[in-house]
Amino acid sequence: MEQLRSIINDASTIKGKVFALFIQVLIIVSIITFSVETIPDLSDQTKQLLQRIELFCVIIFSIEYVLRIVTAKNKSKFIFSFFGIIDLLAILPFYLAMGVDLRSIRALRLLRLFRLLKLARYNKVMRRFTNALVIAREELILFFFLTIILIYLAAVGIYYFENPVQPEAFSSVFESLWWAVATLTTVGYGDIYPITAGGKIFTFFILLIGLGIVAIPAGIVSSALTKSLDKEPLKEEI
Amino acid sequence: MEQLRSIINDASTIKGKVFALFIQVLIIVSIITFSVETIPDLSDQTKQLLQRIELFCVIIFSIEYVLRIVTAKNKSKFIFSFFGIIDLLAILPFYLAMGVDLRSIRALRLLRLFRLLKLARYNKVMRRFTNALVIAREELILFFFLTIILIYLAAVGIYYFENPVQPEAFSSVFESLWWAVATLTTVGYGDIYPITAGGKIFTFFILLIGLGIVAIPAGIVSSALTKSLDKEPLKEEI
Amino acid sequence: MEQLRSIINDASTIKGKVFALFIQVLIIVSIITFSVETIPDLSDQTKQLLQRIELFCVIIFSIEYVLRIVTAKNKSKFIFSFFGIIDLLAILPFYLAMGVDLRSIRALRLLRLFRLLKLARYNKVMRRFTNALVIAREELILFFFLTIILIYLAAVGIYYFENPVQPEAFSSVFESLWWAVATLTTVGYGDIYPITAGGKIFTFFILLIGLGIVAIPAGIVSSALTKSLDKEPLKEEI
Amino acid sequence: MEQLRSIINDASTIKGKVFALFIQVLIIVSIITFSVETIPDLSDQTKQLLQRIELFCVIIFSIEYVLRIVTAKNKSKFIFSFFGIIDLLAILPFYLAMGVDLRSIRALRLLRLFRLLKLARYNKVMRRFTNALVIAREELILFFFLTIILIYLAAVGIYYFENPVQPEAFSSVFESLWWAVATLTTVGYGDIYPITAGGKIFTFFILLIGLGIVAIPAGIVSSALTKSLDKEPLKEEI
Repeated sequence: MEQLRSIINDASTIKGKVFALFIQVLIIVSIITFSVETIPDLSDQTKQLLQRIELFCVIIFSIEYVLRIVTAKNKSKFIFSFFGIIDLLAILPFYLAMGVDLRSIRALRLLRLFRLLKLARYNKVMRRFTNALVIAREELILFFFLTIILIYLAAVGIYYFENPVQPEAFSSVFESLWWAVATLTTVGYGDIYPITAGGKIFTFFILLIGLGIVAIPAGIVSSALTKSLDKEPLKEEI
Repeated sequence: MEQLRSIINDASTIKGKVFALFIQVLIIVSIITFSVETIPDLSDQTKQLLQRIELFCVIIFSIEYVLRIVTAKNKSKFIFSFFGIIDLLAILPFYLAMGVDLRSIRALRLLRLFRLLKLARYNKVMRRFTNALVIAREELILFFFLTIILIYLAAVGIYYFENPVQPEAFSSVFESLWWAVATLTTVGYGDIYPITAGGKIFTFFILLIGLGIVAIPAGIVSSALTKSLDKEPLKEEI
Repeated sequence: MEQLRSIINDASTIKGKVFALFIQVLIIVSIITFSVETIPDLSDQTKQLLQRIELFCVIIFSIEYVLRIVTAKNKSKFIFSFFGIIDLLAILPFYLAMGVDLRSIRALRLLRLFRLLKLARYNKVMRRFTNALVIAREELILFFFLTIILIYLAAVGIYYFENPVQPEAFSSVFESLWWAVATLTTVGYGDIYPITAGGKIFTFFILLIGLGIVAIPAGIVSSALTKSLDKEPLKEEI
Repeated sequence: MEQLRSIINDASTIKGKVFALFIQVLIIVSIITFSVETIPDLSDQTKQLLQRIELFCVIIFSIEYVLRIVTAKNKSKFIFSFFGIIDLLAILPFYLAMGVDLRSIRALRLLRLFRLLKLARYNKVMRRFTNALVIAREELILFFFLTIILIYLAAVGIYYFENPVQPEAFSSVFESLWWAVATLTTVGYGDIYPITAGGKIFTFFILLIGLGIVAIPAGIVSSALTKSLDKEPLKEEI
């Protein structure tokens, strides 16, 4: 029992490492399977193979989930912990799909993506990132807020400039919001863009202000991270 | 009277928080109403509903405005303060629109957007951002200036390369300016781009220099913010 | 004479400020004139007006240039200084154009753009930026070098993936270079992009590495600037 | 012998500098030759000229390679070192191509690109960059990992929103991955983009989170570099 617990939960022993690696490989296999299934016009043979791989993954994940509960010192704490819920959500859709219609399965399968987060389980650097987010919490909220206000103002502005000339593309403020998102993030698909002189000048000023606002959160987080990079090693060494 | 003042102006008491939240929700409701109104081909029923919501919002905002004047210690100071003017501008278009033609209403409604800024009223992090802007003031002005020079030089350069081959797209320096804005901000809609070898090589060099110039302001502000993040908490604790 | 010198060269006196502002406004007027001239199908009246404004600007700039030589303590030093040459280049095309054919004027007019740099003459923040560039000199050269290598490698790679399928768009490594520039700078006009699975996967990996490389120079310069921002004020106060 | 060694390996002497420069120029010539060869419909005369330049480059590179082995103090160490292998790979395709079919030459020629890395050989700033990468190693791995997870989640999400409406563009999760890469890197070619309201709102939220994640690695590296910029000069002066 004690040995089983160390294999499942302690990635510092050799057996634990093998177990963790096996589960991680299986998560990636199951995600690839999920992706391949979406390819249209697959042969029946391929479909069957994918279903078998899926079945195998779900069985292993179910066994893993049961083992985690059994070996947990505080059972209810594990079940209701973040990863406990994730683990359950990763296998639940399969069992639920047996009794219900096919459409709903499709939507429920999306939950399987949370398995990816399992990979992060063993990653200790994540904590430093979380710390950086906590330190810069208020700044980040302000900038996400400013970004949303700016996107809205840009959308309303461009609506007044472009709607009379392009009533199809800029049909409402909501359509203009799509333009504002694609422009201020500098994605610029090119499916919708201003053609009037006023709209172009407005876009220039919005970009001049907007590029700064949108790029600042990444700058804050990376600065906070570099700072924590300086301090953390010291704490760990002492 | 004293109690009313604390409800309206002090968001630290429970009643004050409820009042502030109520006004904020109403601002968002009024903005959504404004956005929905721009959707073409709305049913008469929907239009009527939107008008009623709008009427309700304006009435509440008017009452709020009057209460703010009444409870203000220095009445004229509030009326001519930034938020005093914003509050007035948020309700004025509605009363003005009663007597004038419909076209002008549309333009005046844009002012209602300033209501969004009311949300920022209670936000204390904003001050830190303003400080960062003040510290980096001169640098920011220089870089916005350099950005504009660079955009102009890029526009003139590309005009000489592309005008003979694409007289429609690059018809004048002003059209080329639009290309320069879309390119140096890396939006790149794809509505206008160089096709000559010279124009492409020119674009490469302009981007090599330009990307740095355009990205620097965001870097300066985020660095200044992270710095103020280090110092501010200390000041507040002492 | 001494008074004239202070008016022309010293922007700290009132008369000097007025003179500097007058010259700066004239530079902007002359640039707008230059831009408006490129608009096709201008009326003869407008063309004539533009020519008169141009004539006026050139006369003032010529007088300014002569005065700067006259008031310079070291005449030959001014003539061969950066701004001395710029000032000459700004007026020379006009006098040269009187005797030669029209085509060559067009190309020479580009030199007039250097007038824009005159605006920077009085800007002291520029020095801090130059300092930051000097400090990060070696890093910047390395990254511009890495950027060019990366763009070349990306171009050759995509050429092998896309040339067999899109022989028109990716006809040679040179055409692919244009794709690499537009992609790694994230401009993405959409005039040329990979369509094969191999080309798309290659693009993903090139972007994963490339985005970092391309964005780093801006990060280095802005960090160096923020640092100089901390130190400079102290030096100036002492 | 000792003199030959210093010419080849020591770029601090005059003869060594000339030799290094000569090799670097030849590398660039050989790369240009390689690029020009990909242009379709070259005249036979040009092709012959290119072949002669290529022959010349390979001969010089072969002599250089032999000299490096001869002058190396530890011959086998050089042969199996990074640059020893690169040097061999740069000339090997030419000799191999003599006996085999033309198709395979084309693919092998790609190896010649590694010659570019020779230019970096003499660059000492590279070490500082490598140091910065080592310091930020764990953070960079985490963020590349988060980027890949995010791209995958974005692809699956958009697949569910857009597949029913655009079965051609978003035919499978793999096609959606291409969209996710082009969007989160903000390249935005415009060959594939969401058209449903749900897909557009999803894109907005993915960009809000994603822009930060994708831009952070560049921020970390540039911060680490600026820090090493502060410390390095001190070490070198002492």
